[in-house]
Amino acid sequence: MKKFMNDAGSLAVDSQEGFVAAHDDLVAFGQGRKHVRRKVFTPGKVAVIAGGGAGHEPMHIGFIGKGMLDAACTGHVFTSPTPDQILSAIQEADNGAGVLLIVKNYDGDVMNFEMAAEMAASTGSHRIETLIVNDDIAIERTARGTGRRGVAGTLVVEKIVGAAAEAGRDLAALKAIGEAAIAATRTMGVALKGATVPQTTRETFVLGDDEMEVGVGIHGEPGRSREKIADAATITAMICSQILDDLAPVRDQRILLFVNGLGGTPPSELYVMFGLARRFFEERGLVVSRRLVGTYATSLDMAGISITVTLLDDALTVLWDAPVATAALHW
Amino acid sequence: MKKFMNDAGSLAVDSQEGFVAAHDDLVAFGQGRKHVRRKVFTPGKVAVIAGGGAGHEPMHIGFIGKGMLDAACTGHVFTSPTPDQILSAIQEADNGAGVLLIVKNYDGDVMNFEMAAEMAASTGSHRIETLIVNDDIAIERTARGTGRRGVAGTLVVEKIVGAAAEAGRDLAALKAIGEAAIAATRTMGVALKGATVPQTTRETFVLGDDEMEVGVGIHGEPGRSREKIADAATITAMICSQILDDLAPVRDQRILLFVNGLGGTPPSELYVMFGLARRFFEERGLVVSRRLVGTYATSLDMAGISITVTLLDDALTVLWDAPVATAALHW
Repeated sequence: MKKFMNDAGSLAVDSQEGFVAAHDDLVAFGQGRKHVRRKVFTPGKVAVIAGGGAGHEPMHIGFIGKGMLDAACTGHVFTSPTPDQILSAIQEADNGAGVLLIVKNYDGDVMNFEMAAEMAASTGSHRIETLIVNDDIAIERTARGTGRRGVAGTLVVEKIVGAAAEAGRDLAALKAIGEAAIAATRTMGVALKGATVPQTTRETFVLGDDEMEVGVGIHGEPGRSREKIADAATITAMICSQILDDLAPVRDQRILLFVNGLGGTPPSELYVMFGLARRFFEERGLVVSRRLVGTYATSLDMAGISITVTLLDDALTVLWDAPVATAALHW
Repeated sequence: MKKFMNDAGSLAVDSQEGFVAAHDDLVAFGQGRKHVRRKVFTPGKVAVIAGGGAGHEPMHIGFIGKGMLDAACTGHVFTSPTPDQILSAIQEADNGAGVLLIVKNYDGDVMNFEMAAEMAASTGSHRIETLIVNDDIAIERTARGTGRRGVAGTLVVEKIVGAAAEAGRDLAALKAIGEAAIAATRTMGVALKGATVPQTTRETFVLGDDEMEVGVGIHGEPGRSREKIADAATITAMICSQILDDLAPVRDQRILLFVNGLGGTPPSELYVMFGLARRFFEERGLVVSRRLVGTYATSLDMAGISITVTLLDDALTVLWDAPVATAALHW
């Protein structure tokens, strides 16, 4: 294992500290360094809070700022933040208009955010709603267990809900807007090389020179299947056709197309995939009216990509287009 | 070799096409697809043009837009664009105020940009100046040959010169501003894993599990030395102390600190390095007044980082802060 780090145990903390050092015009540590928050909160708006394990940077801390998140909590690598961390973010960010928690659908995250919400609500002083993002179509809807995972599509939900919160919408409206964004969003990922967890010094799965892992999540878990490596057009068609099947859009449907790097994939390759995916959807009668390409939701150093599609209507488009000023997204 | 690509020979072209497809609100192909240009030129301003081999994305095409470049030419992987490509960019972007070419100091790039400048000037209709960026301190100044290479610091020069051009400065002033930015800028890089060139399917240098390559460029050439891998603090101190020695800043000097990923390094590790580098310089009495962290000047999938420092005065700070609206830089 080779990483730019001081120590396997300190990577998450050192990385978060470096992030705050780089962006202290936008963000600051919360009390006790339990979370990272906007430097200046907007009075009167609903607080939007997200979080998850470390190793997904810039998700979620890179999305803190005007038009997106108010605070984010980061746990150890691939490990949920504790209820105590989440509670501290709720207490610091809530200024009376309530709190919307955005949670990726993983057992640990869901449990700890739920626990924190209960602790905060039981004091009687916080109104809280929760959105569970489950955009990953690599997991069957009908599967036993917890259902589909939340992956890169969480960025889309956070952007859209964050814009609506900034526009002054109330907690109930934000919950509904978030549910609409989740219902409109699907993601699938492929890896050419697994992630190496610093503490174990091993890749979480090891691929042969001619293999790829299809349907990967972002916590190093194996994907849905291991297949022979294919060219970019074949991989794109495989992912995009499954997304299409799942979303079943109408003809001329407008979409947001988001190609995400999983950490070890260079921009040159992300652009190859974007070009192919855009053409794929346009040839099938969809209108790629909004796009995003970059490394936003990572799985440490995993060499891989994911493709996310969100079906856009006028309301979601306006919210996507609204100004955002964070470390990772800015327009 | 594993890459998201259709074909080794088409990676550069497919990637550029995907880039334009993702950012066609900002950029467009020039005539005959020989270069990429701003969708809309600003009348009356000096045209700022850069270029180089493919494999460094988002450099330079990601820097096209208001406040930075007017056009960029991309060759094959790690290969200079042809004089014909550069000439087409000059002819399309020059609207009478002249052209400033920004060239990284590599033999092939310098030769081809010079040839294009001569071809354009000989027609009598284009006034042209050239800046040669040579920020890489891994190469000795006194070395025989072509001197120091141009690497990630080229971004800083392009941002500063681009802002001055947007502000209406004339060709002679831009040349002087660019020379000042170059004189104030130094970079050094370290790799944990070499770049794999698609055509050869091999890494350009192969490191052992406990080795790192110190003083790498961005064309896959070996660095200055191969050393035993070290922790992030040791690597940071090694790079930053050499930059300090070379720049010899005064106490309380303001600097721009720029930590760049070379393509295969995840954001989590870039932030670790930024935090350490910021502390290194602050402990030595410098003021890190501006910062940038991200994957901007790459060497295909190389796992590595570079650290760039620019000494800032009021004039350079104002130009750095000026609005920029490109695919890769936006504020």
